[in-house]
Amino acid sequence: MNTQDDLRVNSDRLWRDFIELSLIGETRAGGVARLALSNEDLRARLWFANKLEANGLHVYDDDAGNLSGVLSCGNPKAKTLLIGSHLDGVPDGGRYDNSVGIICALECARVIQVAGIKLPFHLEIINFTDGEGCWQSLFGSRALANKLTDNYMSDTPTDYAPFRAALMRAGISPAKVKNAKRNPHHLAGYLEIHIEQGHRLDDAQIPIGIVTDIVGRTTYQMTFYGEAGHSGTTRRENRRDALRGAAEFITQAHRLVEENYPDGVFNCGNILVSPGAFNIIPSEAQLTVECRHYHKRTLADMESRILKLAQDTAIANRLTVSQKREIHMPAAHMSPEIANHIRTACQHLHITYLDIVSYAGHDAQMMFDITPTGMIFIPSKDGISHSPKEFTDWDDVVCGANVLLHTILQIANHYDAK
Amino acid sequence: MNTQDDLRVNSDRLWRDFIELSLIGETRAGGVARLALSNEDLRARLWFANKLEANGLHVYDDDAGNLSGVLSCGNPKAKTLLIGSHLDGVPDGGRYDNSVGIICALECARVIQVAGIKLPFHLEIINFTDGEGCWQSLFGSRALANKLTDNYMSDTPTDYAPFRAALMRAGISPAKVKNAKRNPHHLAGYLEIHIEQGHRLDDAQIPIGIVTDIVGRTTYQMTFYGEAGHSGTTRRENRRDALRGAAEFITQAHRLVEENYPDGVFNCGNILVSPGAFNIIPSEAQLTVECRHYHKRTLADMESRILKLAQDTAIANRLTVSQKREIHMPAAHMSPEIANHIRTACQHLHITYLDIVSYAGHDAQMMFDITPTGMIFIPSKDGISHSPKEFTDWDDVVCGANVLLHTILQIANHYDAK
Repeated sequence: MNTQDDLRVNSDRLWRDFIELSLIGETRAGGVARLALSNEDLRARLWFANKLEANGLHVYDDDAGNLSGVLSCGNPKAKTLLIGSHLDGVPDGGRYDNSVGIICALECARVIQVAGIKLPFHLEIINFTDGEGCWQSLFGSRALANKLTDNYMSDTPTDYAPFRAALMRAGISPAKVKNAKRNPHHLAGYLEIHIEQGHRLDDAQIPIGIVTDIVGRTTYQMTFYGEAGHSGTTRRENRRDALRGAAEFITQAHRLVEENYPDGVFNCGNILVSPGAFNIIPSEAQLTVECRHYHKRTLADMESRILKLAQDTAIANRLTVSQKREIHMPAAHMSPEIANHIRTACQHLHITYLDIVSYAGHDAQMMFDITPTGMIFIPSKDGISHSPKEFTDWDDVVCGANVLLHTILQIANHYDAK
Repeated sequence: MNTQDDLRVNSDRLWRDFIELSLIGETRAGGVARLALSNEDLRARLWFANKLEANGLHVYDDDAGNLSGVLSCGNPKAKTLLIGSHLDGVPDGGRYDNSVGIICALECARVIQVAGIKLPFHLEIINFTDGEGCWQSLFGSRALANKLTDNYMSDTPTDYAPFRAALMRAGISPAKVKNAKRNPHHLAGYLEIHIEQGHRLDDAQIPIGIVTDIVGRTTYQMTFYGEAGHSGTTRRENRRDALRGAAEFITQAHRLVEENYPDGVFNCGNILVSPGAFNIIPSEAQLTVECRHYHKRTLADMESRILKLAQDTAIANRLTVSQKREIHMPAAHMSPEIANHIRTACQHLHITYLDIVSYAGHDAQMMFDITPTGMIFIPSKDGISHSPKEFTDWDDVVCGANVLLHTILQIANHYDAK
C-alpha cells in the first residue's frame, strides 16, 4: 500500500476536467471568454457544482456567490483550509487563467479523499466570484475577507446598477453580499495555484514559483485641464494644451520609474481627450495611470513622486491637474511558513523552484492578512496571459498539482490545532 | 446729392439684420448653433432668400445649394463680382462667424442699389454651403471652383451616406453638385469680410485687417502600433507601448515646430488608445495631427520633418506607425490688386489697417486661384471665436461694412472689362 509520500494526482482525470472546462465559453481563437456572472461563468459554476457533488464533496455557496466543495474532517470544531481560485476570465482570454487553479484544487481533494487521509482541518475548494475584476476586483475574496465597502448595496452611485443587476441575475442579493464574511479564527490558511502570467519561470526553465510577495497596485485617474481654442488662430504663448501637458507627463513618468525604480511598474493605459477635434486645442486630457511595486513604502514613494511630476508638468504648461486615487490594492506578503511547506513539497518531489514576486493581482491579496496564505506559480509560455495564446505545458500543470497536494499534506503534518 | 465718396452703410438696418439672424438657432449660452443643412441653417437660408427678394435682388441657387442674390448691371456679357460668406456655423458657436459676412455684403448691395450706382459687373451676394465644414470643408465654394472629388456622388464609401441624405433633405441632389461649377472667365473677383478669429487686430486696436495669405493646412491620422500585454507582468525591455511612443512624439513635435517654425502651427487634437484598460499596455494610439503654415514650401518642409519624427520615435520605441494624409488645404495668396483696393478704401475712410495672415480656413481658399480674391478682417474681442463668447464691437462691424462697400466701388472704378 502506498504511503502519503507516494501520493500523486491523476493526470488523465485532471486533463478531462481541463478539456471539459475549456469548452465552456470557448472562442474561435482557441481561448476562453468567461466573464464573471455571464452565462458562460454560470455554466462553469454549474459544471463545478456537479463535479463537487459527484465526488461526494459538500457543495456550499455563500452570499457573495463564492462556490465551494468541502471535504469535512469530521470534527465540527476544526478550522478550514481554503484552496481557491477563480473560474471567470477576461474577454478573449486563455484556457489556463485560472481554470487550472480550480481543477488542481479539486483533484487534490479527490486524491486525499480516495486515499482516506484524515486531515486535521476541513479542506474547502473555493471558486471566488469575479477574480478577474470584470465588475469589482476580487469581489468574492473581498467579501469573504470582510473588505467590501457599502457601494454595491446602495442605489447610488448609479455606476453599480449594472453590477447589482448581474449579481441578482446570478441569484446573488446585493443587500446580502456582506454576509459572506468569514471569521478568521475559523480558517487554517489559504492556498492557491496559478499560472505565473510572467516570463521568469519560463526563462529559467523552472517548473515551480513560490510566491513571496504580491505587488501592490494603485490606479489613478488624472485629468489635465487647459483651455479649448482655435488651433490656427490662438497665439502660441496663449496655448493651454491639455494633451501636450499629458504627453510630457507620460514621457517623463516612464523615465522617472525606469531610472529610479528597477522593480517598479508604471503604466498609462488610456487617455481621453476633449473636445477631440483636429483643429481645436485640447482642453481636457483624462489619463488612467497605474503604479505597481511589491514593497509598500517604495510604492508610496513612487506614487508621491509621480503625483508631484504631474503637478509640476501641469504648472510648466499653464494647466491644472486633478488626481483621483481609484483603486489601491496593497502589497501582500505570503506566509513564510506556508512558503516553507511549498519548498519542502518541492524538495520531496525533486522539483526545482524559484522564489518569485507576483506582478499581477490575486485573491490571495484579500486573504493574506486574515489567514496564513501561500501561492504556487506554474510557468506561462513566453509569459503570455490574458490572451488565447496563453499556454502551460501539461507536465507543468501536473507538477504544480502534485506540489499543491504535498503542500496540503505538509501543512496537515505540521498543523497545530491550537 | 451725395457723391459715391460719401456713401455709407446704414448701421440701423444692418443691426436689425444681425439681430434677426442671431435668433435663428440661438443657444441658451447666448450664441448660435446653425450646423450646415440643419433645420436652423435652412431657416437662415429662407430668411436670406426673403431679404434678397424684398430688396429686389435676383435670387439664385445652384446645384450645390449655394444661395445668391444678384444685382445685375444690365449687360448680359458682364462678369460677376462675388461677395460671399457662410450662414452656417459650428456647434455651440457665436453670433458673428460669419453672419456678419453675409449681412455686410447684403447691406453693400442695398446701398449701391438705392444709390443707383451703375457697376461694370454684376454684383452677386453668395452664401456658400457648409463654410464651416460640418460635412465637407468649404463644400459650396469647392463646388463652385470645380474642386469637388467624386466621393459625394457614389454610394461608396458609405461614410458619405449621411451627408448625401442631408443634401437631399435640403433639396440638393448629390448627383448634380458638380454642376455648381462656374466658368472663371465669367467672374470678376471674390471678396469676403470675416471676423479675424484671432487676437492681432484686437491687441493692436486696429479695426481692419487686409488679408495677404491664408494659411495652408494638412491633417494627418497617425497610428502608432505596439503590442498589448499585462502591464504588471510584461518585462520592461519587452514593453512595446504605443501610447508612450505617441506621447514622446507629441512632446517632441511641439518642440520641433516651436524651435524651427516661428509662424508654423502644430496641433494634436485627439488621441484614441486601444485597448484602453488601466492594466494593459496600449497596443494602438491613433492621433489626429494638424500642421499649418502660410508658406507652401515651409509647410511641406514642416510636414516632412514631422512625419520623419513620428517614424524615428516609433523606431526608438520598437513600434510601427502608419500615416494617412486626411485633408490638405493649400496655402492661398490674396490678390495684391484687391488688397490695394481695400487699402485705398481704408485710407479714403480714414481707417487704420494692418496686413494680416489668416490662420483659419476660408472659402477664399477655394476661390483665390480661379479669380482675384480679397478678404477683409474685423476684430474678434480677445481673439475668441467658435464660442458663444465671440464678440465684435458693433462699430467695427459697421466700419468693416463701409470698407467692403468702398472696396467694391474701388474695384468698379478701376475695372477693365477686357
